[in-house]
Amino acid sequence: MLKLYIGNKNYSSWSMRPWVLLRQAGIAFEEVMVRFDSFDAQSDFKRTLGPVSPTGKVPVLVDGDLVVWDTLAIAEYVAEQHPEHRLWPADRAARARARSVCAEMHSGFTALRSHCPMNIEAHLPDTGALIWRDKPAVRADVARLVAMWSELLQAHGGPLLFGDFSVADAYYAPVCMRLATYGLPVPPHIAEYVQRVQQLPSVKAWIDGALAEQDFLDFEEPYRLHRG
Amino acid sequence: MLKLYIGNKNYSSWSMRPWVLLRQAGIAFEEVMVRFDSFDAQSDFKRTLGPVSPTGKVPVLVDGDLVVWDTLAIAEYVAEQHPEHRLWPADRAARARARSVCAEMHSGFTALRSHCPMNIEAHLPDTGALIWRDKPAVRADVARLVAMWSELLQAHGGPLLFGDFSVADAYYAPVCMRLATYGLPVPPHIAEYVQRVQQLPSVKAWIDGALAEQDFLDFEEPYRLHRG
Ligand SMILES: N[C@@H](CCC(=O)N[C@@H](CS)C(=O)NCC(=O)O)C(=O)O
Ligand SMILES: N[C@@H](CCC(=O)N[C@@H](CS)C(=O)NCC(=O)O)C(=O)O
Repeated sequence: MLKLYIGNKNYSSWSMRPWVLLRQAGIAFEEVMVRFDSFDAQSDFKRTLGPVSPTGKVPVLVDGDLVVWDTLAIAEYVAEQHPEHRLWPADRAARARARSVCAEMHSGFTALRSHCPMNIEAHLPDTGALIWRDKPAVRADVARLVAMWSELLQAHGGPLLFGDFSVADAYYAPVCMRLATYGLPVPPHIAEYVQRVQQLPSVKAWIDGALAEQDFLDFEEPYRLHRG
Repeated sequence: MLKLYIGNKNYSSWSMRPWVLLRQAGIAFEEVMVRFDSFDAQSDFKRTLGPVSPTGKVPVLVDGDLVVWDTLAIAEYVAEQHPEHRLWPADRAARARARSVCAEMHSGFTALRSHCPMNIEAHLPDTGALIWRDKPAVRADVARLVAMWSELLQAHGGPLLFGDFSVADAYYAPVCMRLATYGLPVPPHIAEYVQRVQQLPSVKAWIDGALAEQDFLDFEEPYRLHRG
């Protein structure tokens, strides 16, 4: 069976993407949770992942002898192995656009990613309001998201970015979590998309897992001293 | 015909990847060079790209009505449209590994990318020696490259990362240029791979184009006051 190595569900935005993708598609896999302790060479995290992945990061997908690392490569591998699930849109042009938005996420939105780290359990609207006031690069990232999602939702008629569920929704699921945690302002039709993503069964299951965790990791918590 | 929008050949590492990919595969395309002036909203660069691409960045591939942006999505699109060129390795496991190394590049090697910006025309071994001495993160990025390339060259027997030319070589071509410009130390079998990449006809053609350019852009030149 496929084995997917992931980090903490509360914090690990990269892990969330392939987990949601596999789960939402109903593809069976074994989850191997490698809790974050630190990312030092001597951490339990690195010692566990070192023998598995050449980068020592999560997510990693293991299929028998084959190790696939890095989120986008995992998505392509799963989509290729399971054409019946149409994880990329069937239409050639839509598929190229879906890959463009995923690749854009893979290397972009750095201001949003660094100032608003994923933290599903946290509720930080005041922090979000300060970030919104003081960080134009975060506002620019959100403006780009709003433009992208608006265009896709309109072109494909919703409910998800390319109509039915696709890799693109899995790719933007952690972004939806950030918008919610930090209460960043978006227009109503975008807030509705965020809610629809949060209500996908796979995303709900991930959120439940995140809420059940007890870890509080200072290096993932720039804005809190403790939970709750 | 396909239209590929690119930036300056001397500086634009992202543009180099799909250009080399198309050219090395012998796929016809029209090159549209959008010279960098600045990346401000009012720059000629942004005003030219704004109507073409939703991100206002290069590279962008235009195929009739379809706009494909972001390097990795362009590579997937071209590979899908031209299966006869086997731009991804034919073997399923090798293909998954090739996608992993490209996705790793797409979001990684940030220390190398920021401290050693691509600058094909420049010869900066002293700068490179200082970077090498003072930036452990650059040394770590190069160590990862050496490990990755060594393993792939051995597994597939060379001459290129997956035996024959693939997207992976196009993806790492700008890295080869950086290693050369800054004279970063690598073992002989890696230096030989770098040379082989530089001697690919497509890479040679790109280098010739870079050397013919006259632009000197301060924001791409952290280490020089002028050319030569
Ligand atoms: N480009 C990688 C990024 C993976 C990544 O950065 N994962 C984080 C956790 S969300 C990690 O493992 N960090 C450990 C480290 O940076 O050493 C991917 O898409 O898989
Ligand atoms: N992830 C993008 C990155 C493209 C990119 O950053 N291109 C640079 C030139 S090498 C650019 O257009 N920069 C303009 C800007 O940052 O505004 C891709 O792979 O296409």
